Amino acid sequence: MAEELNELVDNVVNAEDTEEYGKVINQLVAANDPEEIALLLESLPVVQRLSAWEHVRQPARLAILLAMRHDARETIIREASTQELDEIFQGIEAEDLVELAETLPNRMVDRALAVMDAKQRDLFKDALQYSDDCAGHWANYRLLVLPVNAKVRDALRLLRREIPDHADTIFLVNRMGYFTSAVEISAVIGSPEHINLIELADEDCVAIDGNEKVLDAALKVEKSNFSALPMVDAQGKLIGRMDLRTACEVIREHYEGQLMASAGMDEEEDLFSPVIKSARNRAVWLGINLLTAFAASWFIGLFEATIQEVVALAVLMPVVASMGGIAGSQTLTLMIRGLALGQVTSSNTKALFRKEVSVGGLNGVIWAIVIGIVTYHWFDSILIGLVIGIAILVNILAAAMSGIAVPLALKKLRLDPALSGSVVLTTVTDIVGFVAFLGLGSLILV
Amino acid sequence: MAEELNELVDNVVNAEDTEEYGKVINQLVAANDPEEIALLLESLPVVQRLSAWEHVRQPARLAILLAMRHDARETIIREASTQELDEIFQGIEAEDLVELAETLPNRMVDRALAVMDAKQRDLFKDALQYSDDCAGHWANYRLLVLPVNAKVRDALRLLRREIPDHADTIFLVNRMGYFTSAVEISAVIGSPEHINLIELADEDCVAIDGNEKVLDAALKVEKSNFSALPMVDAQGKLIGRMDLRTACEVIREHYEGQLMASAGMDEEEDLFSPVIKSARNRAVWLGINLLTAFAASWFIGLFEATIQEVVALAVLMPVVASMGGIAGSQTLTLMIRGLALGQVTSSNTKALFRKEVSVGGLNGVIWAIVIGIVTYHWFDSILIGLVIGIAILVNILAAAMSGIAVPLALKKLRLDPALSGSVVLTTVTDIVGFVAFLGLGSLILV
Repeated sequence: MAEELNELVDNVVNAEDTEEYGKVINQLVAANDPEEIALLLESLPVVQRLSAWEHVRQPARLAILLAMRHDARETIIREASTQELDEIFQGIEAEDLVELAETLPNRMVDRALAVMDAKQRDLFKDALQYSDDCAGHWANYRLLVLPVNAKVRDALRLLRREIPDHADTIFLVNRMGYFTSAVEISAVIGSPEHINLIELADEDCVAIDGNEKVLDAALKVEKSNFSALPMVDAQGKLIGRMDLRTACEVIREHYEGQLMASAGMDEEEDLFSPVIKSARNRAVWLGINLLTAFAASWFIGLFEATIQEVVALAVLMPVVASMGGIAGSQTLTLMIRGLALGQVTSSNTKALFRKEVSVGGLNGVIWAIVIGIVTYHWFDSILIGLVIGIAILVNILAAAMSGIAVPLALKKLRLDPALSGSVVLTTVTDIVGFVAFLGLGSLILV
Repeated sequence: MAEELNELVDNVVNAEDTEEYGKVINQLVAANDPEEIALLLESLPVVQRLSAWEHVRQPARLAILLAMRHDARETIIREASTQELDEIFQGIEAEDLVELAETLPNRMVDRALAVMDAKQRDLFKDALQYSDDCAGHWANYRLLVLPVNAKVRDALRLLRREIPDHADTIFLVNRMGYFTSAVEISAVIGSPEHINLIELADEDCVAIDGNEKVLDAALKVEKSNFSALPMVDAQGKLIGRMDLRTACEVIREHYEGQLMASAGMDEEEDLFSPVIKSARNRAVWLGINLLTAFAASWFIGLFEATIQEVVALAVLMPVVASMGGIAGSQTLTLMIRGLALGQVTSSNTKALFRKEVSVGGLNGVIWAIVIGIVTYHWFDSILIGLVIGIAILVNILAAAMSGIAVPLALKKLRLDPALSGSVVLTTVTDIVGFVAFLGLGSLILV
């Protein structure tokens, strides 16, 4: 993937400002599928992205926009004329508009709704009753559904008409529209026509709830052996399904989100977001970090007199702080993954705490000795070696404890540990490290 | 998911040492599917994990082991008797042994091969011809295959026998076994029996190459509209397929890997890895970090005399270093994601560099002013404010540049930017920050 795309982007960029340009882009758009073109557009700087977009025609445009990340899509939608958007809205389905609505101005959503088929409009409204972190918001509405008393014959008739992508089961509903069970297509094909479908039902196909967290629902779909699971509302009425492809996207976005969050960014951030917008988004994170850095500085300031007397302490401060920071981030990362996957629970926290503190203690002792010896040789002072050794041990232990406690506390406060965990943690390890090191220095060295 | 699992783990831990224990575990194992039990076992400390495992019986054991992460699985396999493993190997299929072989001692793999069906043994050997970062290593061998001249009638006969999970197409091969095209099951069901399958072929179903990087192949499967894509060898012979579920797992493991790598850990690290093992794994990362921290200290040491005269410099050092570190990690994270997805190519690097340096410049100026003013008020010195302001601007700009350059350089050196990027980057920003700040301090303040 990566290398092929490399070539495409190179072709576009190299052809720029030559007569070949239009031809290159046209070829490229014709030869690739919407997902690849979406990735290509994301890889182009905004000016080239917009000019390449001009060469993309309907019906590919909708699929391409849907495949793009939020911020990249926005750069295109912002420049699109009402007429262009109207063309895109022709025959749009509910689930696609749900996705687009994230980026569209409200008046354009209304415009799309106005031309939408009444059935799809109702589905769109159903989806919007769920917030965007619930499974129901992202339901897929192309289903194979039959009444619970249908026979194999009816199923075959249904299958002959059309099978949606990633549909390997037929959902059976009662007269009220409540989900009762699911029958695998493979079971239907091998069975005599007069058999009741309910006799072929597969008990393993369990419905997900529209109110469930979307990540939990996606993990259920991934772990099931089905290409899609039915989705029901709070009363048990069949409202749609979540297929494996959507599940895969949800899971990918979750992890991308965590990766980006670890640097205080949004997973929708575009490679070529406008400078002002990027700078503003990131400034928030820099500002928060600045507050914590000043807090650490304030603690150092308490020991100004000591530093003036033993400058070696100032020289070695980064060693103490960064060893604590690294050790803490290791525990924190394990916790963030464990919390997201549900591996960390109230009852195993204690055992986890003991284990991480043991790991921290072991590494703390080892590195305290190593750093103590190096420092003793560097500054020719056993006492400085002793001071830094103790400070390292204390800080690595504190790091292990806060690596467990900080994400749990943040979760209680309903804050995302992936986002704010590292900032809180390094503040703790910086301050503990500096105070232990400089404090001990004041006691022992001055 | 998370909450339900929470309850299960609580039940196990609370029932421990009571008479109810065996009953609780038995109920739990009976009521849940292998994937959930795997997650539950991963959530239990090792002693409880092993005692819960005793209550799990065949045939669920193989599926549970397969669903567990490497390190957690190892804790169980290490304690298992040869007899227990032999039971698990009964009727094992090639792709499952490929997965297990990661954790099994070689002599146990041989034992499994000895009892394996000859056909499956050959498939296992085929898979092992591909290294584990290639798609071919992870091929799935349950396929629907027909000769290229087969008719709809033949396809229906095949489908009546059995349809594997996530199979929505039948693959057509020529006499030599070369993949020619794929036909959707949905197209077969609606068509008259005498039609040639080749007439129904779906051109969008493109084969992936067994030699392709497994992540690239998985992204292709995720982006396709099919539940699986056929996989061919270098000559075009059909060797297997990759289904959407495997693709989803590959993508998830990639991101988990990046998340864990950012803290110098392995994505297979178990929540309850043995203390010694955990400590050893993490010690490497702490050691590397220590070298870079000492390097930064050495640079600070060059300015000892200056620090002794202006202790405020020592107090403020963390502010300069950490603002650079945060700004750099933002650019780095964007690059790591872009490189993995193939969004970053040789031809858009320049544009990306310009954009990131602009963002850095903007934020650099803003925060230089803010920090300059705060420092001026804190230490009542315009000159210190000026020195730190300039150092902040320089360091944030350097951070943006290295955020682009470091991952590209690491990739050229065939090192994983997700693993080593942040260590190299913070070394750069620490050293640039300290030298700029203390250097300017020596020039202006002393």
